[in-house]
Amino acid sequence: MADAGSWGNRTLVADLGAARGAEVTVAGWVHRVRSLGRVSFVLLRDRSGIAQLVFPGSVDISSESVITATGTAEANERAPGGFEVQVQEHRVLSAAADLPLAVNGRPENLSLDAQLDHRMLALRIPKLLDVFKVQATIVESFARHLRGEGFTEIKTAKLIGSGTEGGTGLFAVRYFDRDVFLAQSPQLYKQAMVAAGLERVFEVGHAYRAEKHDTPRHLNEYVSLDVEIAFIDSEHDLMDLEQRILKTIFAAIAERNRRELAAWGASVPDAEAVDALPRLNHDQALGVASDRLGRRVYEVSPEVERELCAWAASEHGTEGCFVYGDPRRKRPFYTHPAPDGKTMSFDLLFRGVEITTGGRRIEQHDALAESITANGLSVESLADYLQVFRYGCPPHGGFAIGLERLTQKVLGLENVKEASLFPRDRKRTRP
Amino acid sequence: MADAGSWGNRTLVADLGAARGAEVTVAGWVHRVRSLGRVSFVLLRDRSGIAQLVFPGSVDISSESVITATGTAEANERAPGGFEVQVQEHRVLSAAADLPLAVNGRPENLSLDAQLDHRMLALRIPKLLDVFKVQATIVESFARHLRGEGFTEIKTAKLIGSGTEGGTGLFAVRYFDRDVFLAQSPQLYKQAMVAAGLERVFEVGHAYRAEKHDTPRHLNEYVSLDVEIAFIDSEHDLMDLEQRILKTIFAAIAERNRRELAAWGASVPDAEAVDALPRLNHDQALGVASDRLGRRVYEVSPEVERELCAWAASEHGTEGCFVYGDPRRKRPFYTHPAPDGKTMSFDLLFRGVEITTGGRRIEQHDALAESITANGLSVESLADYLQVFRYGCPPHGGFAIGLERLTQKVLGLENVKEASLFPRDRKRTRP
Repeated sequence: MADAGSWGNRTLVADLGAARGAEVTVAGWVHRVRSLGRVSFVLLRDRSGIAQLVFPGSVDISSESVITATGTAEANERAPGGFEVQVQEHRVLSAAADLPLAVNGRPENLSLDAQLDHRMLALRIPKLLDVFKVQATIVESFARHLRGEGFTEIKTAKLIGSGTEGGTGLFAVRYFDRDVFLAQSPQLYKQAMVAAGLERVFEVGHAYRAEKHDTPRHLNEYVSLDVEIAFIDSEHDLMDLEQRILKTIFAAIAERNRRELAAWGASVPDAEAVDALPRLNHDQALGVASDRLGRRVYEVSPEVERELCAWAASEHGTEGCFVYGDPRRKRPFYTHPAPDGKTMSFDLLFRGVEITTGGRRIEQHDALAESITANGLSVESLADYLQVFRYGCPPHGGFAIGLERLTQKVLGLENVKEASLFPRDRKRTRP
Repeated sequence: MADAGSWGNRTLVADLGAARGAEVTVAGWVHRVRSLGRVSFVLLRDRSGIAQLVFPGSVDISSESVITATGTAEANERAPGGFEVQVQEHRVLSAAADLPLAVNGRPENLSLDAQLDHRMLALRIPKLLDVFKVQATIVESFARHLRGEGFTEIKTAKLIGSGTEGGTGLFAVRYFDRDVFLAQSPQLYKQAMVAAGLERVFEVGHAYRAEKHDTPRHLNEYVSLDVEIAFIDSEHDLMDLEQRILKTIFAAIAERNRRELAAWGASVPDAEAVDALPRLNHDQALGVASDRLGRRVYEVSPEVERELCAWAASEHGTEGCFVYGDPRRKRPFYTHPAPDGKTMSFDLLFRGVEITTGGRRIEQHDALAESITANGLSVESLADYLQVFRYGCPPHGGFAIGLERLTQKVLGLENVKEASLFPRDRKRTRP
């Protein structure tokens, strides 16, 4: 789309090829300056890419200044993109001060702390900004897929009177004369909207975990891609749905983010690889991991998650697996029991880490009340939740995908914080 | 899309016509039961609509129970939708207890408090649920329009170390060993991402205002549709953009939500009416309102907003207007001054209320620092914000549309709380 107002005849860097031979006006950030005395080369960065500008004489513009330049677009096979602009005149719109970090260098030379301390500036490094172009594709394709299957997008309250899952791990908010909490998940509200008659809902929204540990896989504030659907039999219907969603997301990334994937040396699984994701029940998963590790394991720890993904790669040629049917003690009170005494729950492990957890929920009021009590929670504190099931609720279930974790795993980022524009951890609450 | 697992051969109510003469299985909520002794009529509600089931003999199923029923689909011009199912067998999946409010009645008979106290159940009333089908269209079409113009969707932090706009009206969150605040808007982060090189960004996210007043136009938690764009001249470029967005949103609602609009007796402006939205500067707006009210007015109060919309209807045949060029004292410190000494700001009034506020921002570091001081704020407390402008920032601006307010105005809802699934006000923090 053309730019606005007096910028209407601005040419984007990506469109220089089509403008070859013509006078063009470009605008953007000064990525790098190389003055050779009689001539200077300036790399100009805009939202579409990077192009070379050729200035007569020497140039005194600081890196990251925003400029506009007018000149002739010409082919030059040694220039990035194959085109350059022979500049006749230019104007500095906003001069940059000396930079505390190099924006035109390799982000690998910056520590994560340096990246995050100077986040506003570090995000100008093209490779770091690319992460969020991929993330935007994930959000769009997730929503588009679900709308195509008849889901309705909802936006639910993040300020809640009490915790659905018991109250631990919640951030408290001073709300006028009382305390409320930040929602850990939209679980209750998703279920309420399924029961209200929408049957199929999804939400893209923030979620909060007041967890003290600081690991490469945890954020205290994250974006949850949430799904809930009525009229299912078991967790297998949910795994089927998640496979269809992932195929849409990965196809969209492969199509739109080729450049970003290349920058990170990353690739996404094709449809065949998603279809090939094996499903292990909890006992099978522990058996596989025990065999591979040469010792008996009793729970799906981070180490076991990595081992199961390695097994899926070698045995099934795919990069993850589902683990379903957890024992009841491992799952929240609302998880639907399975006929074998376990639960209708599942996790998706992908590239070594859990990116989804979900399952069928209990929809029968009395069974749910009993499960609440059996889990040591109080029926009174969950009265609003129980109301949903008192007045007719279909069989249903759902799951949540952590947006940052999926982004991290798609691009092979070391730390999930790299996949959050402005991450929040125990120590970090700015910028 | 077909339902999952054993539900694969379920027929949706909306598809009964195509199944005429065949044996079908339907599933959903019992909307109403009328037993005539030898025969009973049950209205069944599913996500696609309401259909009549004909049971032999009398029926003892409570309203809102979830059932599945198998029988023959037949034409009956007196049945809702023109088709009914002659039931051979049925099963109650989830029996409903006695209802505290009627779900099959007219919502007009329920007070707003009753609707909100029993929100989970009240949302089963089709007309109330319809509000959120329209809202889902708004969210989808807003994002789709902006992607079409090269915008990137972002998700920014809602937990912030300090307030951008001075710290009043913020909710405090206890965050481990310190306090942080809930963001009033993603203003700083939108600007940071424009300056980081994305140039065009949008966000759909929650925003928080710790305002004590409880009016039909305020929520303490709401969803903000946020836009920010680089390379503009003035607020007029932003008004142009908003008109294009609104045309896309209104066209999508007109196409997809005909039934919901009819239920509310509402309609959306066509493209011509959006193009016709007049633009008044602040002085012109006060002049028009003063003339109409027969007394001098000095600010755009809610009464003036209504008067200006009435004027736009009678003079321009459209349902709102833009008011631009506010004096500096009316606008936040970051608003770009205009050549006439006023500001490059604007509001959009629609159907009597302000639904958007925005403007061009100051992009020059020193001018911004000066404006911060002149507004009685401290440069130190806004240090992170100022960093964005220290290192090269293009001319830019943006605006925000309140999702609930737009939904309210599209459907003609009396109170904005009706357009929030689970509204939060000073007293209400549940369900």
